[in-house]
Amino acid sequence: MLIQRLTIIGVGLIGGSLARALKRVGACGEVIGCGRNKANLQHAIELGVIDRYDIDPARAVKDADMVVVAVPLGSMADLFATIREALSPEAIITDVGSAKASVVADAQQHLGQHFSRFVPGHPIAGTEKSGVEASFAELFENRRVILTPLAETLMAAHTKVKTLWTQTGADVVSMSVKHHDEVLAATSHLPHLLAYNLVFTLAKMEDRIEIFRFAAGGFRDFTRIASSDPCMWHDICLANREAILQALNQFNLDLNQLADAISKGNSQEIENIFTNAKTARDKFLG
Amino acid sequence: MLIQRLTIIGVGLIGGSLARALKRVGACGEVIGCGRNKANLQHAIELGVIDRYDIDPARAVKDADMVVVAVPLGSMADLFATIREALSPEAIITDVGSAKASVVADAQQHLGQHFSRFVPGHPIAGTEKSGVEASFAELFENRRVILTPLAETLMAAHTKVKTLWTQTGADVVSMSVKHHDEVLAATSHLPHLLAYNLVFTLAKMEDRIEIFRFAAGGFRDFTRIASSDPCMWHDICLANREAILQALNQFNLDLNQLADAISKGNSQEIENIFTNAKTARDKFLG
Repeated sequence: MLIQRLTIIGVGLIGGSLARALKRVGACGEVIGCGRNKANLQHAIELGVIDRYDIDPARAVKDADMVVVAVPLGSMADLFATIREALSPEAIITDVGSAKASVVADAQQHLGQHFSRFVPGHPIAGTEKSGVEASFAELFENRRVILTPLAETLMAAHTKVKTLWTQTGADVVSMSVKHHDEVLAATSHLPHLLAYNLVFTLAKMEDRIEIFRFAAGGFRDFTRIASSDPCMWHDICLANREAILQALNQFNLDLNQLADAISKGNSQEIENIFTNAKTARDKFLG
Repeated sequence: MLIQRLTIIGVGLIGGSLARALKRVGACGEVIGCGRNKANLQHAIELGVIDRYDIDPARAVKDADMVVVAVPLGSMADLFATIREALSPEAIITDVGSAKASVVADAQQHLGQHFSRFVPGHPIAGTEKSGVEASFAELFENRRVILTPLAETLMAAHTKVKTLWTQTGADVVSMSVKHHDEVLAATSHLPHLLAYNLVFTLAKMEDRIEIFRFAAGGFRDFTRIASSDPCMWHDICLANREAILQALNQFNLDLNQLADAISKGNSQEIENIFTNAKTARDKFLG
């Protein structure tokens, strides 16, 4: 069996789905859940997602050979500090955070001798829903999981975490921390900011009821990600702020140019932007 | 029968779907298509969308009791001027343009004595696809259609166009031209600009292949509208530029504030924006 005792800290959409996916293929023995909300953990047992739980992270990781940390980015440092002394000397630790530099810094500072067995990870999967109720075993099938191992990471730890994710049906790739954070700022973090900001702007307008009443399918799709968990996204914004602000800056330069073209009735420039965008989207995502 | 002879100028997604929907319920007799592309019109006959076609708009509207103009906004003025002399003195004319003030101005200037039988309209329906191949009879079911009749509009014309859309399964409402253009700038035109602009920005980045490779479902949904027809959206941007630039300006003020909050690590403000947005979206579109 790949994992004898798996501890999942943060049994929500991602942590819950991972437990379900690994149980389904018999890749793990006992699954211990950990979190701050007893009712949620009890519910996770009832759903068959975990076998038992402990709300004390130090007790929850005891004798676990694999620890998956699925808490918001802002809670990583404290969590690592809390489990450090309780971790087994062979335990492999991984996380599922949407930004990697901040987690790596937290782990380096707080995991001590366990740092070489820490493999930073990020499954590119999810929905706008959150919580263990929203979890399902198929979430990672044919999705990509990015691992960002460091020079100090033990090959064996990297291999085991890679195997773990492969068992869920995901396609696992590795890249540098910096590259991950830049790519995700562009494709995920920036779009979330824009969607949140658009809904925020419209919700303040006087005729907001009319506005949302006449929103069509395009608006619904465009703003779906604005229904994501605000706390999680607050943490991502701060954890990856440099790369996000850089991507936002490039976006704004182009947006100002587009606004200027519209204002001046510069047809050629407007069509150039729209046509380039459509061509790129159809080519890469069509 | 509601309509004896229906002429549809511009047999694409919207025009084609309208013809299909009206034929399905037997609401119209002969359907004449008109457009600049013979092959497309021939294809529309083969698909059973229209009965015959004429590429000359003046000939196409002859003896029609209902003329639906489904051409890009930038082509409206010329089209109205072209059909003016050929229109029957009883013909009712309507359009499906995404912005209304510009169409109304064009109609007022070029439709002459027919202006009182012109009913500006806008079905809030569509997909990112275009062309008659993408048309289907169910497109307008349970969707909203906005009519913006003017003080000069004949009640009988308004009623007939309202009935036409009701027959397609749509929910028809009326509002002022100005209100329509403001609401649509906020819920449709601005999101299209943002989606086009984001894909444009990312497509210029050096690691664009990686970026699109790691784009998840959220990005796919967010950018779906960037696959829309660039020419049509160019025309909308110019036709409704004032309302669009105003909505964009409000969006930018909020976005700058959000960027500032992220840059300064102002958690309370970030959470406030995200939570407000999520609450509004879940309430109005959830």
